[in-house]
Amino acid sequence: MKNIFKYPTQNTWEMLLKRPALEKKDLRNTVQDIFLKVKEDGDAALIEFAIKFDLARIDNLLVSKEEIEFAVAEVSPELKAAIDQAKENIFKFHVAQKEQSVEIETTKGVICWRESRAIEKVGLYIPGGTAPLFSTVLMLAIPAQIAGCKEVILCTPPQKDGSINPAILYTAQLCGITKIFKVGGAQAVAALTVGTESIPKVDKIFGPGNQYVTQAKQLAMEYNVAIDLPAGPSEVLVIADTNANPEFCAADLLSQAEHGTDSQVIYIATDEDVFNNTLMEINKQVAELPRNEIAKIALENSRFILMNSVEEALEMSNFYASEHLILAVENPRNYIGKITNAGSVFLGNYTPESAGDYASGTNHTLPTNGFAKNYSGVSLDSFVKKITIQEISKTGIQNIGKTIEIMAAAEGLKAHKNAVSLRLKSLENGI
Amino acid sequence: MKNIFKYPTQNTWEMLLKRPALEKKDLRNTVQDIFLKVKEDGDAALIEFAIKFDLARIDNLLVSKEEIEFAVAEVSPELKAAIDQAKENIFKFHVAQKEQSVEIETTKGVICWRESRAIEKVGLYIPGGTAPLFSTVLMLAIPAQIAGCKEVILCTPPQKDGSINPAILYTAQLCGITKIFKVGGAQAVAALTVGTESIPKVDKIFGPGNQYVTQAKQLAMEYNVAIDLPAGPSEVLVIADTNANPEFCAADLLSQAEHGTDSQVIYIATDEDVFNNTLMEINKQVAELPRNEIAKIALENSRFILMNSVEEALEMSNFYASEHLILAVENPRNYIGKITNAGSVFLGNYTPESAGDYASGTNHTLPTNGFAKNYSGVSLDSFVKKITIQEISKTGIQNIGKTIEIMAAAEGLKAHKNAVSLRLKSLENGI
Repeated sequence: MKNIFKYPTQNTWEMLLKRPALEKKDLRNTVQDIFLKVKEDGDAALIEFAIKFDLARIDNLLVSKEEIEFAVAEVSPELKAAIDQAKENIFKFHVAQKEQSVEIETTKGVICWRESRAIEKVGLYIPGGTAPLFSTVLMLAIPAQIAGCKEVILCTPPQKDGSINPAILYTAQLCGITKIFKVGGAQAVAALTVGTESIPKVDKIFGPGNQYVTQAKQLAMEYNVAIDLPAGPSEVLVIADTNANPEFCAADLLSQAEHGTDSQVIYIATDEDVFNNTLMEINKQVAELPRNEIAKIALENSRFILMNSVEEALEMSNFYASEHLILAVENPRNYIGKITNAGSVFLGNYTPESAGDYASGTNHTLPTNGFAKNYSGVSLDSFVKKITIQEISKTGIQNIGKTIEIMAAAEGLKAHKNAVSLRLKSLENGI
Repeated sequence: MKNIFKYPTQNTWEMLLKRPALEKKDLRNTVQDIFLKVKEDGDAALIEFAIKFDLARIDNLLVSKEEIEFAVAEVSPELKAAIDQAKENIFKFHVAQKEQSVEIETTKGVICWRESRAIEKVGLYIPGGTAPLFSTVLMLAIPAQIAGCKEVILCTPPQKDGSINPAILYTAQLCGITKIFKVGGAQAVAALTVGTESIPKVDKIFGPGNQYVTQAKQLAMEYNVAIDLPAGPSEVLVIADTNANPEFCAADLLSQAEHGTDSQVIYIATDEDVFNNTLMEINKQVAELPRNEIAKIALENSRFILMNSVEEALEMSNFYASEHLILAVENPRNYIGKITNAGSVFLGNYTPESAGDYASGTNHTLPTNGFAKNYSGVSLDSFVKKITIQEISKTGIQNIGKTIEIMAAAEGLKAHKNAVSLRLKSLENGI
């Protein structure tokens, strides 16, 4: 296998860890045209696009109650039970992210605090294609529900027969979503951005998608709609010491590699036997995967690195800022303090990335492409905004009034000063 | 005074509250050229731009220790004391935003939690121009310091004599910033985005600025650098009942109006006497302001509205989603639950917006332009990212393994399933 690096010195890391250059097609004009068409023709444009892009005839964009009931009956009890357990765990983890308001008296008589409010209208985009991502419905709909978003709209492309995958519908209704629309691609994002007869304009758009969807989300921001995260291909970085299980490491690396041909996988081992055995295991396991064509291409973009210590591996990991970081090492908790950049971290031999992808409770919408340096993954915070509130008493304004007056004057903002001076004067006059 | 509306019906609100259309010049090409020049010529480009745009000759972009010492001596003891008190309050409020990690056991043996990590390198932009915004230095540098950002870079344009306003330098050093650069405008944002010989490339850029800076921050995002907030003109909405003091209301409205000609001020009163007296007071106070030319233009964009009740006024306020909301009403706390969209809220007659602008402790970098619907203001959260961490025991994976297997299989992701199956099998085999 190529892409093997033994004990690389730090000055080579940048080149070694270069992410595969994204083929950035200029889709801006194409997507802009889609936006204009949706703005102009509304639902009619969406129905037209469904014929063109999804090869599907849609009479009614809104999924009907009957379709949902049918889907609920369609999903196997086994899958339902699995989705239910995942939902429960995701709910527990995200509901714990609710922030308690704490009043802070910064100066006697000056009380400040923050309160969270749900973003009122949110749009969730769930792609179609090879994998029906009902797990992403859980990851977005559950925190939206906990936040108390008034309107949660789900858009997902129809299959050729005009239907939606039953697992997606089952999961959506389980999470209280009733407004599900058969719209995919850039036109779905356009509809959520500008609104149509049936699809309401939203305040924030969430969810993964192809290059068109990504470009559309960027365009949505120019219409003052917020988005969850900038997009990029998925990644995992696995650090293994002598304690690691090569079979498990290989499986974890492959579970990332099967995502897409642009997925990247970085493996760092400190033990040469573990390293070699993992490489062997990868070759063995990849052969048996239904998506092995995809995985093999992804492995080409990947890196297999031998290093001297877990500490050094973590330095490299922080430099790379991986979406997922697996620490298949002894006493992994000892190293947590050293992690500065990562989307989500998995500790020890029995914590596969798949757990976080589906059912442990953490969110799988995470910063990719090095964005773990400057972005958090999706959480309850993504569905609320925090409002600061303050209440100042007469004593309070007397305690900080002078300070405000001096600062406002020094910035040349007389009216700012005046707003305080008039109050102080009225208090001096005993009004 | 024009722009007066009495008891407008809800169907007129949208038109009534339309924000003044921003003159969106297409600066993209201009700013893109600046980025390319900075990328190519580094510091030399910055020195050239300083001559061109700031009319200043700069030998050394980095502010020297001597310049800082000189500035510290220059600032009056009175202003120093004011800045110190403001700093203390802002520190108290923001340090209380530190999040305690709480481990959640979502299923027996499955433990998940979040930890915050500082964004390593942040750039703070402080504009020059008519007002030396040292208060903005406090608002950005204090949470950066609490978060523990390793590198905090401040850029601010030089005055014509090549110096920086002493209050800005004093405040920066007070907040532990040592890397202060004499660079302004789009070129400052470009330098923070691509890096030069003296200015490090950062992960996130904060701070206000003119149209060029705004465009540059948008462009920075295309280089994978994060930004604090989308930009827009400043706003206040004041709700007054019979309990309000017209003199104070007028002063608060004017303190917003003096910010810039594009500032917007909305006044809603439920009492006709208070309403009329406030209008009279505005006319009286505005005449005496040094920035009254600016304030008068801003007042043209403003709205003065009579409504039936505070509840109705709050509905309108939520619709508008103001950056600042002042509740000059009796028992203002009773209405907090009804506020859904606002950047920062000020309660009662002795809580002027100026308090939050300078010294009460809350942050003054807030969502404008209706972004209070979908964005929070700057807080400690803006300087950290939250990493999720999980640790699953052998029992844990046995408890949720089946669920993951079923879900992964249903999404057609065999390798995801495999990562769990191999572990479950090894446990069955008693390894």
